[in-house]
Amino acid sequence: MPRIVDHEARRRDVARIAARLIAVAGVEGVTVRDIAREAGCSTAVVSHYFRNKRELLFSVYRNAMTETVARVRRRRDRGADLQTCLEAILPLDRQRRDNWKIWFSFWATAMDDVRFMAEQRLRGREARQLIVELLETASDVSAASPETRDMQARRLLAVVAGLSSQATYDPADWPAKRLSALLAAEIAALG
Amino acid sequence: MPRIVDHEARRRDVARIAARLIAVAGVEGVTVRDIAREAGCSTAVVSHYFRNKRELLFSVYRNAMTETVARVRRRRDRGADLQTCLEAILPLDRQRRDNWKIWFSFWATAMDDVRFMAEQRLRGREARQLIVELLETASDVSAASPETRDMQARRLLAVVAGLSSQATYDPADWPAKRLSALLAAEIAALG
Repeated sequence: MPRIVDHEARRRDVARIAARLIAVAGVEGVTVRDIAREAGCSTAVVSHYFRNKRELLFSVYRNAMTETVARVRRRRDRGADLQTCLEAILPLDRQRRDNWKIWFSFWATAMDDVRFMAEQRLRGREARQLIVELLETASDVSAASPETRDMQARRLLAVVAGLSSQATYDPADWPAKRLSALLAAEIAALG
Repeated sequence: MPRIVDHEARRRDVARIAARLIAVAGVEGVTVRDIAREAGCSTAVVSHYFRNKRELLFSVYRNAMTETVARVRRRRDRGADLQTCLEAILPLDRQRRDNWKIWFSFWATAMDDVRFMAEQRLRGREARQLIVELLETASDVSAASPETRDMQARRLLAVVAGLSSQATYDPADWPAKRLSALLAAEIAALG
C-alpha cells in the first residue's frame, strides 16, 4: 500500500522548522541539509517543497506575516484595545522575536531581489491598512479624518517597527515592560 | 623608486566603493571582484585591506555610523533644532538611503555573528545617548528628568528607525516631505 502523505501539512512543517532555524542562525547560516535533518526527511523532500533557499525564505516570511495579522485580528475581534492589538506584533516573546528576525533576513534579501522588494512593499502597505482599521474601532483614540488616521497609522507602524528592531537585537535594554510602556506613551500622544 | 601608496586613503576608497555596491545589490550580491573592478585595483589589494566580505561589511557599517553621527553633531554645533539634527539620520537622499541599506544588511548578518551583534548593541546605545544629548540642548523640547529624557530618546530612536525602514523599501509611499512631517508630529507630541 502506498504511504499517504499530507503534502500541505508536511510543507507547513518544513516551513515552520525552517523559520525556527533561520531565526536562530540567520538565512545565510542555515542549509537545506539542516532543515531536512530537523524535519526528519531527506534534502530531496525539502527541495520538492521549496525549489531553493530563497523560495523557502519567501514562504517563511509570508507565514510569519499571515500569522501575525491573524493574531492582531483575533485580539481585535475579542474587543481588545489598540495597545493590546499592537502588542501582538511587538517582540514580547520568543515566537514574535523569531518573526522579527525572519523579517530582518527578508529585508536584507529584498535589496537585490525585485520580487522580495515588491512583496515587502505590499505587506508594509497592508500592515498600515490594518492599523487604520484598528484605529477606526479603537475606543481609546478619538475620531479623526481619513488624513489624520493615515498619519496616525504611519506613526504607529514606524514606532512598532522601530521598537521591534531595537528589542530584537538588544532585549536586555528593551525588555517587554519597557516596550509596552513606550507603545502606550505613543498611543496617548496620538491625540 | 617604490610607488608611494597612502594606505589609509586607499582603504577608505575601497570601503566607500564597497558601501555603494552593497547598498545597490545587497551584501550577498557583491563580490570582492566587483569591488576590485570598481576601485581599479586587483582582488589581492581588496583582500589585503579586508580579509573577507564580512570584515568589509563590518568596516562599511562603522563608516556609515561614524559619518551619520558626525553629520548630526555638525548640525547641532551650528545650533540646528532637534528636527534638523534628526533629519540628518532619515533617508531623505541617496546617501542616507544607502546608509540605511547597509545597516539592514548588517542587521541580517548580526543574527549569526556574535561580534556583529555586540557592535549593533553598542551602536544602538550610542545612538540613544546622542539623542539624549540633542534633547538636552534642544530649545523646542521642554526640560525633563533623566528618566523622561531616556524615554523620549527611545521613542525618537524607534520612530526614526521605523520611518527609515519603511522609506528605504517604499520611497514612493514615504517621500521626504512626509517623513519630515511625521518626525515633526513625533517631536511635538513629546510634551
